[in-house]
Amino acid sequence: MISFTCDYTEGAHPAILEALLQTNMDQQPGYGADVYTEHAKALIKEACACPRADVFFLVGGTQTNSTIIASLLHDVEGAVAAETGHIAVHEAGAVEYTGHKVLTLPQHQGKMEAGELKAYLERFYADGSFDHMVFPGLVYLSFPTEYGTLYSKAELKAIQAVCREYKLPLFIDGARLGYGLMSPACDISLADLATLCDVFTIGGTKVGALCGEAVVFTGGAPRHFFTTVKQHGALLAKGRLLGIQFETLFTDGLYLKIAQGAIERAMELRQLFIGKGYELFLDSPTNQQFVLLTPVAAAALEGKVAYEVWERLPDGRSVTRFATSWATTTEQIAALAALLP
Amino acid sequence: MISFTCDYTEGAHPAILEALLQTNMDQQPGYGADVYTEHAKALIKEACACPRADVFFLVGGTQTNSTIIASLLHDVEGAVAAETGHIAVHEAGAVEYTGHKVLTLPQHQGKMEAGELKAYLERFYADGSFDHMVFPGLVYLSFPTEYGTLYSKAELKAIQAVCREYKLPLFIDGARLGYGLMSPACDISLADLATLCDVFTIGGTKVGALCGEAVVFTGGAPRHFFTTVKQHGALLAKGRLLGIQFETLFTDGLYLKIAQGAIERAMELRQLFIGKGYELFLDSPTNQQFVLLTPVAAAALEGKVAYEVWERLPDGRSVTRFATSWATTTEQIAALAALLP
Amino acid sequence: MISFTCDYTEGAHPAILEALLQTNMDQQPGYGADVYTEHAKALIKEACACPRADVFFLVGGTQTNSTIIASLLHDVEGAVAAETGHIAVHEAGAVEYTGHKVLTLPQHQGKMEAGELKAYLERFYADGSFDHMVFPGLVYLSFPTEYGTLYSKAELKAIQAVCREYKLPLFIDGARLGYGLMSPACDISLADLATLCDVFTIGGTKVGALCGEAVVFTGGAPRHFFTTVKQHGALLAKGRLLGIQFETLFTDGLYLKIAQGAIERAMELRQLFIGKGYELFLDSPTNQQFVLLTPVAAAALEGKVAYEVWERLPDGRSVTRFATSWATTTEQIAALAALLP
Amino acid sequence: MISFTCDYTEGAHPAILEALLQTNMDQQPGYGADVYTEHAKALIKEACACPRADVFFLVGGTQTNSTIIASLLHDVEGAVAAETGHIAVHEAGAVEYTGHKVLTLPQHQGKMEAGELKAYLERFYADGSFDHMVFPGLVYLSFPTEYGTLYSKAELKAIQAVCREYKLPLFIDGARLGYGLMSPACDISLADLATLCDVFTIGGTKVGALCGEAVVFTGGAPRHFFTTVKQHGALLAKGRLLGIQFETLFTDGLYLKIAQGAIERAMELRQLFIGKGYELFLDSPTNQQFVLLTPVAAAALEGKVAYEVWERLPDGRSVTRFATSWATTTEQIAALAALLP
Repeated sequence: MISFTCDYTEGAHPAILEALLQTNMDQQPGYGADVYTEHAKALIKEACACPRADVFFLVGGTQTNSTIIASLLHDVEGAVAAETGHIAVHEAGAVEYTGHKVLTLPQHQGKMEAGELKAYLERFYADGSFDHMVFPGLVYLSFPTEYGTLYSKAELKAIQAVCREYKLPLFIDGARLGYGLMSPACDISLADLATLCDVFTIGGTKVGALCGEAVVFTGGAPRHFFTTVKQHGALLAKGRLLGIQFETLFTDGLYLKIAQGAIERAMELRQLFIGKGYELFLDSPTNQQFVLLTPVAAAALEGKVAYEVWERLPDGRSVTRFATSWATTTEQIAALAALLP
Repeated sequence: MISFTCDYTEGAHPAILEALLQTNMDQQPGYGADVYTEHAKALIKEACACPRADVFFLVGGTQTNSTIIASLLHDVEGAVAAETGHIAVHEAGAVEYTGHKVLTLPQHQGKMEAGELKAYLERFYADGSFDHMVFPGLVYLSFPTEYGTLYSKAELKAIQAVCREYKLPLFIDGARLGYGLMSPACDISLADLATLCDVFTIGGTKVGALCGEAVVFTGGAPRHFFTTVKQHGALLAKGRLLGIQFETLFTDGLYLKIAQGAIERAMELRQLFIGKGYELFLDSPTNQQFVLLTPVAAAALEGKVAYEVWERLPDGRSVTRFATSWATTTEQIAALAALLP
Repeated sequence: MISFTCDYTEGAHPAILEALLQTNMDQQPGYGADVYTEHAKALIKEACACPRADVFFLVGGTQTNSTIIASLLHDVEGAVAAETGHIAVHEAGAVEYTGHKVLTLPQHQGKMEAGELKAYLERFYADGSFDHMVFPGLVYLSFPTEYGTLYSKAELKAIQAVCREYKLPLFIDGARLGYGLMSPACDISLADLATLCDVFTIGGTKVGALCGEAVVFTGGAPRHFFTTVKQHGALLAKGRLLGIQFETLFTDGLYLKIAQGAIERAMELRQLFIGKGYELFLDSPTNQQFVLLTPVAAAALEGKVAYEVWERLPDGRSVTRFATSWATTTEQIAALAALLP
Repeated sequence: MISFTCDYTEGAHPAILEALLQTNMDQQPGYGADVYTEHAKALIKEACACPRADVFFLVGGTQTNSTIIASLLHDVEGAVAAETGHIAVHEAGAVEYTGHKVLTLPQHQGKMEAGELKAYLERFYADGSFDHMVFPGLVYLSFPTEYGTLYSKAELKAIQAVCREYKLPLFIDGARLGYGLMSPACDISLADLATLCDVFTIGGTKVGALCGEAVVFTGGAPRHFFTTVKQHGALLAKGRLLGIQFETLFTDGLYLKIAQGAIERAMELRQLFIGKGYELFLDSPTNQQFVLLTPVAAAALEGKVAYEVWERLPDGRSVTRFATSWATTTEQIAALAALLP
């Protein structure tokens, strides 16, 4: 059985395991005060060309999102997100659990639209009773989105401009950041990203690490952020586990290199489906490919290839997701090609 | 520099790294649905002789404590703990952040006393205005305690009896459980523990793992606990990281074996200090030893041996903590012996 | 200046003030243990023909909604509401502040549709990752709605049937309940209402009281509800203030009698606008009338009649709300008629 | 039966009811935008000689305390209070429900000691792991305290100095403020109070009002405080009810005048008990008197005089509280005198 169900089916990139082995018995202080974490932070600031940044390493995506959001919001403020935003749907209400509403805008293939954001903010403040409502307190978007799509530099600039006008921090969730940056459709670099928002994350879990998300506050972290992380249960005792992994990923550009491989496999996958006449549910330029799979194809793959089914259509086809990752091989793509009718 | 500052200065037990290496490219589903996690759960239930138990793996201690506590309490209930309980002091208010008060009782070398617990509960319900107060909703204790001390079986039974009388779940925080169970002063087994409380944790982080705490609900988990874990940001995407570690630790009794080594080193350490005439701050039978260190000794160790200073006494001595772990070697103890005046 | 801006522009019905005067120096215990509160509860249970009910008196609407909702939900559950539901929009995120998401469904003139509710619940549990999402935990609707509309008995029964199928408590927010029950379009009685839901409120603030909302749990209150009320800051020390008001309102049917007057005035208002050729924004059968006001009319009323403007239309007209209440007089309607072009 | 159980057994001062009657049919906007509220705020700022102050009116004490505290604290901060502070004991965990810990200091007849506060703060920041702990974020004290005692001006200045050194806002809970200010033992005025803290409350509920607490931010309110009040369910729709009451209480010094009467009755009560040889539990200079009542006395008062029993002593006596209020009459004191053995 070959699995394309998601981008976290394997363990870690071998270089990470090797680094864990090499450093294993070195004694280091806990809670991120170790030398590896220190070095990893420096490497990330350099990769982002953002020396003023404050970098933190947290363990998982949901925890990272709710910790960042709670750290930036006033009690009466909420996070503005596309209605398909991960925080709005698949995080079990973690943001609301911290007391904050997620304020949703329409999505367009997973993306928020700058004009609609502006219109929402204008309407909000035009409403005579806005002080009886949750204030928009920050803008959240994901890059790539939950649908694998990407914002262009121009789109991000437009959203950033609206945020600045309304003094709202912009938070970009990069749980799959590597797969976004290495997409042929991407017109921004990591350094660009650091100029386009107030805080973003660099996902490790889905891009080669066992776990770990780097948080980059491009203009410095909110007051007491370390303790906020602790309060959210997101402070790892053996911080070295995160430090070593990000040190490895940001040495010699490994993070982007392995993301590049995943994108190449995804494009092969995409071509494979298109070549065999399958319709794409939407045209994703990143490592998640959404395909309308026929019952015949589903039967052919049964028990041999795993993928995620999002929805069954009335015509018998299914909306499916095939994800590649740093671990996907050309052999796996070839095996799929051989099976697919 | 040799460090005795805490029990999480190294990485993981080599067998764990080996297991991560061996399983690395095996494709598995996320969120704890992998085969390693399944197997680890079975092994733990077997080790606890508790087939009815529900086992979960979370990442870190603070997160585990606040998730368990929130899952067991009604909104108007709090957690009763000794005033030195970890949740009452060093978790940045993580329990309060979930809306619950920590209700504190006096501590006796880190332990709660069953009689005082009972007296508190009697007084609480005797107070005419108790329905204007936070209800005691569960009892939390740590084993070993924050001071390295242990409850005897009789003490635990007495506390359990009070809990049952008042229908309060008993939660035992075993962040350092292995070091408690292998202490010469311990008169309970893991299987005993499972009969003495409603939920307990088996700490991995401090006993050989990179991270991870096993949660054992001895009579079954609260409703929706999986989603509660997700909501608290405590659900690891690559659940295999936790499953593989606990599978390794509970294969061939590794968990207790490596804890045994730490206890042997701690007893050597204890003898070393006593033999050289140092006073113990308190008599701990586990891996944390609390020693009153003289300025002369401190000077001799300066730059060569690291330990934790808890408090400076007026007479010039310091209350210090020396912790051993699964990774502490006899060579390290010998080196300390050679340096200590 | 005559104001139709809302239904809480005056103080209290004179009978309430008279009762406050009469009982003023009578010494009574606090927190709702007074004789008036006791009597008021009995009167309400009788009026609802629901002897099993538990009745509580809280102070204001937002506080009442968030207290009830938090008392009924598991931590991972949210409240399902129409997207225009008061809790979803105009309560400053009070529900989210207690940690719970408001899950919204489309609205139809302010109402939720039973079929759409059922479809949402089916889809929710069909989603493979529903345990990563906020569980629907109760259904909230308002009667009358925020748009002044009413559910028919059949509609309520259909929603109740879906709730029962999914074991979801049904909560009906009756902040303007009197104005709903006395509408010519209403086909349910107070006693019917008590059979159609698990908890509902009887709004006092907008129907003749200085403040106060009665909460009626038709099958008994959740555990510790008194303390939950205290914890939410919603327990009035001088509970008599609420008890006396509801005792007065539920003696000799005063509550419905004064609501009846408001409805008569509202229907006069409606006829007035229709008669003069104004278009209604929507056809409300209760005390809130939504009228499309022309610039000429707005100019004529300027400085003489106050009302609420909801939105300005591109054609120059405004969506306006004119509300009547127990205090609205035929003289006020006549004065408006005289001014309106 | 005469009741001395508390200071909220009657309704409102007659002047308040009269004002409610006089203004009843005047149409006013809701949520505190009415003319009475505006005037009441001006009167209070004048009485406090604090033109820069921001004044708000909330409904009840618990709600007021938790709203103020939540508005002033960072997520990782807690409120420092004496262990007998109302927020620490009798508010059902309302502060914790907002996510914040109450950090307790020893009490001395209900009071916090400036030296102990300073020592706690010094120790906190000296602890190497303070960033794993809840930060002290404000200081809360009550005036009078829960034991009826008062801080002297010098004591308040000393506490204020510590607060300023550590940049902690000082919040004084004046639920019984009038009874404190009019005590013969009091050496501060309302205007002094405004210079001694950052925020204080003027309790209405216990000093003549049906309900209501005035919040006075002496240097201006925190950002979005109005919406915070709404989010806490503490915003009264008919804000006029609070405005009219405080307008009445702060016209011609009524608030202090009626408090003066209560204090005179309390001193008569005190003399009565002392004169008949009863021991005081503690020497309170305000409207709450704590008396050790003998079984003989208890039997004599049975069914004729009500009071609160705090605790039964082993010697058969009870610690009791007799409270006077604005409504207590000399006749009631005389009746008690006649019954007391």
